[in-house]
Amino acid sequence: MTGTDAESHTQEGREQQLVDAVIASLASTPDQRLKTVLTALVEHLHAFIREVRLTEREWQEGIDFLTRVGHLTDDQRQEFILLSDVLGASMQMIIVNDDATGRTTEATVVGPFFVADSPLVKLGGDISGNASGEPCWVEGRVVDVAGRPIPGARIDVWEADDDGYYDVQYTDGRTAARGHLFADDEGRYRFWALTPTPYPIPADGPVGDLLAATRRSPMRAPHLHFMVTHPALRTLVTHAFVAGDDMGSDSVFGVRDSLIVDFIRASSTDPTPDGRVLDRTWVRASFDLVLAPD
Amino acid sequence: MTGTDAESHTQEGREQQLVDAVIASLASTPDQRLKTVLTALVEHLHAFIREVRLTEREWQEGIDFLTRVGHLTDDQRQEFILLSDVLGASMQMIIVNDDATGRTTEATVVGPFFVADSPLVKLGGDISGNASGEPCWVEGRVVDVAGRPIPGARIDVWEADDDGYYDVQYTDGRTAARGHLFADDEGRYRFWALTPTPYPIPADGPVGDLLAATRRSPMRAPHLHFMVTHPALRTLVTHAFVAGDDMGSDSVFGVRDSLIVDFIRASSTDPTPDGRVLDRTWVRASFDLVLAPD
Repeated sequence: MTGTDAESHTQEGREQQLVDAVIASLASTPDQRLKTVLTALVEHLHAFIREVRLTEREWQEGIDFLTRVGHLTDDQRQEFILLSDVLGASMQMIIVNDDATGRTTEATVVGPFFVADSPLVKLGGDISGNASGEPCWVEGRVVDVAGRPIPGARIDVWEADDDGYYDVQYTDGRTAARGHLFADDEGRYRFWALTPTPYPIPADGPVGDLLAATRRSPMRAPHLHFMVTHPALRTLVTHAFVAGDDMGSDSVFGVRDSLIVDFIRASSTDPTPDGRVLDRTWVRASFDLVLAPD
Repeated sequence: MTGTDAESHTQEGREQQLVDAVIASLASTPDQRLKTVLTALVEHLHAFIREVRLTEREWQEGIDFLTRVGHLTDDQRQEFILLSDVLGASMQMIIVNDDATGRTTEATVVGPFFVADSPLVKLGGDISGNASGEPCWVEGRVVDVAGRPIPGARIDVWEADDDGYYDVQYTDGRTAARGHLFADDEGRYRFWALTPTPYPIPADGPVGDLLAATRRSPMRAPHLHFMVTHPALRTLVTHAFVAGDDMGSDSVFGVRDSLIVDFIRASSTDPTPDGRVLDRTWVRASFDLVLAPD
């Protein structure tokens, strides 16, 4: 009897023998990176099952849960991304790939509501469209890690309205509260948007059921999305979070301390940066964007 | 600056801080078992992402893969179970829950082709229906761990035809190569079936793509499925595997050495156990089923 045979007669040995067999089955994978990723996936998947002593009923519940996630997912709704988000997996992937030197603006989750073709807005223009909310002036600079301005950097911004919905969540095909603009010769940008407000992630599906079963809130900390691109630099996907709101309970773990920005409220009689009086309160925020080399 | 703040400025610290935050978010889960399972899931999911330094492209490919799995899954096709099967997760769950004493018949995967309401077949009857294949006589005893017979134990059996398809994979609604019978007063059973042949698991979907990318065969080692139930005993789900075929490359890792059975071929002139001459070759196998206490 070989050592392996002897081991196979213990519970531990039977379980480990299976892990070894599954990993061995990946030995001929031509793509070495795929082999590395799948091997680690198999190791952790099996370690999870063995540690918790997963029952057949629980396995079946897991299959049923994933089946529901799959059936809810379509062109408008990506429940797998939502699942990745609420498990912190999306944010962990972001952190793993982010520059940890502290010299660049931290990245955070892209979320499911980015749209590639947003309206072009001129500098100082308004991205809000017909979306409802308090006017919010946002300005800042796009620079590299040496502090040099990045003229022509493309800045995509998008956010929910004050009812908590992105335009793409409405069924009428509207485009609102999103747009893109280009930094000026000094790397500066400025635009009107809406003061970000808290909103829940879609909680009417299996991911919502998971949050309910764990007594977690579906609310996201209020934020404005940014994606900044330039041919010579690494794309930055981030948020500006509104200081003063509860930053500890973001349902997708997207908050980074360095991304919390003062959104300063002005009175209805204060003139705006572009020299108007709005007859209602408005808010201003400054947010510089520091991009890493590509 | 607290210890946590200091740690958050290292890459390792930022990553671990996120893991801690996700686990902390599960703290109020009322169901303690759910909390345990989700905590282990989060730990392993994050450890996987951190170990392989998962890229954004790879994360997106993972989301796309799961989306395809979800969209292929319906009432007739369960691609999530197939995925669990080819990753060895289904078999690991079976082993974790199986009696490791070696006193009972080992369990293996149930697979996606079990049907709850199969035809009743009398002892010595034929489960093959109109399915094609070589006649195969199967007999044995159902006993408990003390060797006592289990009269009345229900034995469900099902298998592919010699084209490699189960009845439910055809679109004509046929029922064939499946049935159930009850053990006699001595716990004995016997029936005609078909000699099991190798067949591929469905490989035209994302799981098939995964097998192709890893150069793995979709073939299953030839087998006959059993499910044995009795009110007083633990349900046994297992296979009889055909000795002599390649048992090392089963695509779902279902083979257990103790389940490999001699299927002995008889000539066309050998009289059958029920006293007939078939004018073609046939096979016989003996397979005892030892059930654990409930």
